Amino acid sequence: MALGKDYTSQDCSLARALEVVGERWTLLIVRDAFYGVRRFSDFRAHLDVPKAVLSDRLQKLVDAGVLDKEGHEYVMTPMGADLWPVVHTLGRWGERLHGSLPYRLFFHTSCGTRIEADGRCPACGELVAPRDIELRPGAGSERRDDPVSKRLREPHRMLEPLRP
Amino acid sequence: MALGKDYTSQDCSLARALEVVGERWTLLIVRDAFYGVRRFSDFRAHLDVPKAVLSDRLQKLVDAGVLDKEGHEYVMTPMGADLWPVVHTLGRWGERLHGSLPYRLFFHTSCGTRIEADGRCPACGELVAPRDIELRPGAGSERRDDPVSKRLREPHRMLEPLRP
Repeated sequence: MALGKDYTSQDCSLARALEVVGERWTLLIVRDAFYGVRRFSDFRAHLDVPKAVLSDRLQKLVDAGVLDKEGHEYVMTPMGADLWPVVHTLGRWGERLHGSLPYRLFFHTSCGTRIEADGRCPACGELVAPRDIELRPGAGSERRDDPVSKRLREPHRMLEPLRP
Repeated sequence: MALGKDYTSQDCSLARALEVVGERWTLLIVRDAFYGVRRFSDFRAHLDVPKAVLSDRLQKLVDAGVLDKEGHEYVMTPMGADLWPVVHTLGRWGERLHGSLPYRLFFHTSCGTRIEADGRCPACGELVAPRDIELRPGAGSERRDDPVSKRLREPHRMLEPLRP
């Protein structure tokens, strides 16, 4: 959704947001950053995205303040972390859309309860921040065999560096 | 984000969702449908999107079960209405991203309270469904002068047909 010049005529904060995260692959890169992926080679292994595209998208996310570049790693900023409800809600919607089994499940680390589609912990009633979420593999059959996918078959706290 | 053939290798419900709503313009069309836009000519007036693109995107949304075609109108389905938290959260994120004043404000019709960025009514504590939200113009300066934009300068209940 690099919306081109017509797009600037849209008086809408959604349009502004889509300028940053609406391009092809961008939200999948953001999702991976939530999962703890930080290195270029790991994004590439997990996403099968052409190098030039990945490089462009990562740079744009850095420019927009969604990711910080620290040495060789891309790290989620607080502004980026605020995208979690979008990534989570859209993913859960995708599950319902296809009636598919989830590939990943999200649990509140402090109480072990599975988080609702709206991002709340049903036990605590609170919106759970990504840092307080543990990612576990779901029942959806996963076909990928890259190092990141393999590492994500073990429980993993979101945003903690994933080092395959 | 028509993600192409590589994309099918992504074991991810987010990727499935993006197949439906990730293409250029699609989420802005969905936003307009929440605002009550139903007719091709009104989407076109408000979005300045080429006819062929709009036609393609609307058909894909119908095929995916996000919109229903009723005569000459495109009407949000319950599956489509479930996208509201995504549209709302991403829009509010876009406001924070640019520190811009909001173009639209969202109020809970039953109690008149402004809805939080996470989609809850702070007075009632509940996630508010789109049907229970009134849209009002915000302080963000709007430059557009098409019939839909003009009509949206008056309070309007979401999903109710907007007939400029």
